[in-house]
Amino acid sequence: MGTKGKVIKCKAAIAWETDKPLCIEEIEVAPPKAHEVRIQVIATSICHTDANSIDPKFKEALFPVILGHECAGIVESVGPGVTNFKAGDKVIPFFAPQCKKCKFCLSPLTNLCGKLRNFETPNIDQELMEDKTSRFTCKGKSIYHFMGVSSFSQYTVVSEVNLAKIDDDANLERVCLIGCGFSSGYGAAINTAKVTPGSTCAVFGLGGVGLSAVIGCKIAGASRIIAIDINSEKFAKAKALGATDCLNPRDLDKPVQEVIIELTNGGVDFAIDCAGGSQTMRAALDSTVVAWGSCTVVGVKFGDKGLEVSPIELLLGRKINGTFFGGWKSVDSVPKLVNDYKNKKFDLDALVTHTLPFDKINEAFDLMHQGKSIRTVLTF
Amino acid sequence: MGTKGKVIKCKAAIAWETDKPLCIEEIEVAPPKAHEVRIQVIATSICHTDANSIDPKFKEALFPVILGHECAGIVESVGPGVTNFKAGDKVIPFFAPQCKKCKFCLSPLTNLCGKLRNFETPNIDQELMEDKTSRFTCKGKSIYHFMGVSSFSQYTVVSEVNLAKIDDDANLERVCLIGCGFSSGYGAAINTAKVTPGSTCAVFGLGGVGLSAVIGCKIAGASRIIAIDINSEKFAKAKALGATDCLNPRDLDKPVQEVIIELTNGGVDFAIDCAGGSQTMRAALDSTVVAWGSCTVVGVKFGDKGLEVSPIELLLGRKINGTFFGGWKSVDSVPKLVNDYKNKKFDLDALVTHTLPFDKINEAFDLMHQGKSIRTVLTF
Ligand SMILES: NC(=O)c1ccc[n+]([C@@H]2O[C@H](COP(=O)([O-])OP(=O)(O)OC[C@H]3O[C@@H](n4cnc5c(N)ncnc54)[C@H](O)[C@@H]3O)[C@@H](O)[C@H]2O)c1
Ligand SMILES: NC(=O)c1ccc[n+]([C@@H]2O[C@H](COP(=O)([O-])OP(=O)(O)OC[C@H]3O[C@@H](n4cnc5c(N)ncnc54)[C@H](O)[C@@H]3O)[C@@H](O)[C@H]2O)c1
Ligand SMILES: [Zn+2]
Ligand SMILES: [Zn+2]
Ligand SMILES: [Zn+2]
Ligand SMILES: [Zn+2]
Repeated sequence: MGTKGKVIKCKAAIAWETDKPLCIEEIEVAPPKAHEVRIQVIATSICHTDANSIDPKFKEALFPVILGHECAGIVESVGPGVTNFKAGDKVIPFFAPQCKKCKFCLSPLTNLCGKLRNFETPNIDQELMEDKTSRFTCKGKSIYHFMGVSSFSQYTVVSEVNLAKIDDDANLERVCLIGCGFSSGYGAAINTAKVTPGSTCAVFGLGGVGLSAVIGCKIAGASRIIAIDINSEKFAKAKALGATDCLNPRDLDKPVQEVIIELTNGGVDFAIDCAGGSQTMRAALDSTVVAWGSCTVVGVKFGDKGLEVSPIELLLGRKINGTFFGGWKSVDSVPKLVNDYKNKKFDLDALVTHTLPFDKINEAFDLMHQGKSIRTVLTF
Repeated sequence: MGTKGKVIKCKAAIAWETDKPLCIEEIEVAPPKAHEVRIQVIATSICHTDANSIDPKFKEALFPVILGHECAGIVESVGPGVTNFKAGDKVIPFFAPQCKKCKFCLSPLTNLCGKLRNFETPNIDQELMEDKTSRFTCKGKSIYHFMGVSSFSQYTVVSEVNLAKIDDDANLERVCLIGCGFSSGYGAAINTAKVTPGSTCAVFGLGGVGLSAVIGCKIAGASRIIAIDINSEKFAKAKALGATDCLNPRDLDKPVQEVIIELTNGGVDFAIDCAGGSQTMRAALDSTVVAWGSCTVVGVKFGDKGLEVSPIELLLGRKINGTFFGGWKSVDSVPKLVNDYKNKKFDLDALVTHTLPFDKINEAFDLMHQGKSIRTVLTF
């Protein structure tokens, strides 16, 4: 490959400022430094977290930035010290590092990694490489990275701890979803909530993450999966993937939690909030059964105050937790998830509603905001 | 016994209205009805929940009422259908029923019991017997029961599912604490938080419940137990029972959670809030380590809005739960706890700072409010 060690000029979508469409620009991507890998992105999809990050309510965002964190690609070149990857490897990068050395990585209790530097704002924590510099420039300006991935670019540079090698025969236009949305929702159900066989579940928000949680509940053996969305167009797919009941809070004459409590004679065992925001967090907690109900938070709505919990709601046995990349230790798990997809353990195809050329990225954002897509895969 | 089947006249402390001292009165205690047991209370202690319930902020309280829910006594007589108890048995009643038949009792996931009728206000749920009548009258007025126990009376009537038979040689002036405070704090650590060997813990509020949580952390093998109270007079006892560090938030020049995070290089594994209220709940959650920290809520402060949690605080792995009677299945566990005390597995004597005659019950409340007692045992 003639590009190794050289700056690559390529196409990327840049968010120059908050709340504006992305601009397709030519950028320069510097070669990978020590323990970094430069990747050619083959397919990237859009997760709601990308949209959150240019929402003006998300105050911490840094501009200009190259968003995108759900993709699959091929290694172009590796920096000094990289031994696990070589040019030509198929790979998936991710926002959740796994260094395998820190106290978190060494613990079976978490998939967090100490390579995340700022736990308060994990979404934008990895806005620069570890040496506090960027590999991207455009029109003479340095451009921020995003979540350690920045997949809205034909080429990107990631840390070797944010990357997994996957099978050579993997379909990159599908397994790109394993880079975030699928793994986060599926893992929320099986790793974080630990849904049990025969249990009852409620999943709030039927986007790519929520539908993946439905898949997780189904595979875990839940006997009833109640799927909730304010957009009834999501229900056909939810049912196809395993939902037994679908509820649209806007069509009900009482709060959705009351309907769920009636349907389940006291509340579900597991509620998973994949929409985000105090309203769905409240509904999710309220719909759990008093004695052992578990409420797992996946979605995040910036500028929202969260959930106000009174002690009495907890004393009788409810519990609340949250998930980060579905609880998966990323480097170890992503290749296995790619294999599970190949072996038809779960269906990613159902989650891809649109495929568009990369240049139409703003159209893909519009489809998401209008509730018309689950995942749009962009190809270069 | 000449009293069986007859109304008993005896002494009780009545709360006629909110926020007033209790009045020692002569009352009438009706015989037990079907599946009820009449008990002679030998020793009763005071838990902060008794004080909460006459706090004007606790709006649901019903008056007049006989408070008290932490006691030990002797069966005077049993109603029709009672087979597990007979006159003369030493017993401990409790607010957490265990019927052994309902869906909750049949599940290993909870110690809740469907015999609790109103999950929203568990403290006053059992203000009448199951047939919706009271066994107490005073001056011609019907008096409410409290938490299914009402131990501030020489005689009381409880449901057979709120009662455990204990060893004949049990010291009632000590094991009365197993009726609530000890079991709730100790169980919060070992059953609800599930404190692990070598872990770090923080216990907020060093009353009878909090010190029992310290005992639980110690027995579970915690390597560090940080004990927090706004009253430094509690620290000597906390250290004697196993606390390794004691912190008074009022003596610190920064929030106590920041000091705990520094002391533990990132936060404790387990925080247990035995004080109650949004301030300590917040401090407890904040002092847990980001990746797997667990915050267990035990204390309740009425009229307080609780805890406002943002999704970001949960996504990285923190979890929140609560405890009800320390997670013990009451009928099964209380006799074992009485035995564990006899076998010196833990020390209840350290928790009893005062013993007073029953008539001095208001003095006992004053000692608690002034922070001078841990538990005062009242004897008849
Ligand atoms: N914790 C993690 O690791 C993690 C990972 C990925 C995504 N996320 C978060 O998960 C959330 C979902 O992401 P996505 O990509 O699936 O988004 P999406 O936009 O594809 O789907 C969100 C869905 O929620 C529905 N919704 C919105 N408000 C609702 C309400 N009040 N009640 C019910 N449904 C409602 C929408 O109609 C939509 O179908 C986002 O907040 C994202 O930031 C978290
Ligand atoms: N969940 C349950 O099953 C259960 C059972 C019993 C008691 N409780 C509750 O537990 C709590 C404690 O009961 P107790 O009998 O031990 O009370 P207590 O009055 O004996 O002790 C409370 C302690 O908390 C301390 N405290 C108060 N505010 C504080 C603050 N801001 N920071 C640190 N410490 C503070 C006080 O100084 C005192 O030492 C009460 O709220 C009670 O209602 C719950
Ligand atoms: Zn995402
Ligand atoms: Zn690590
Ligand atoms: Zn109590
Ligand atoms: Zn029961």
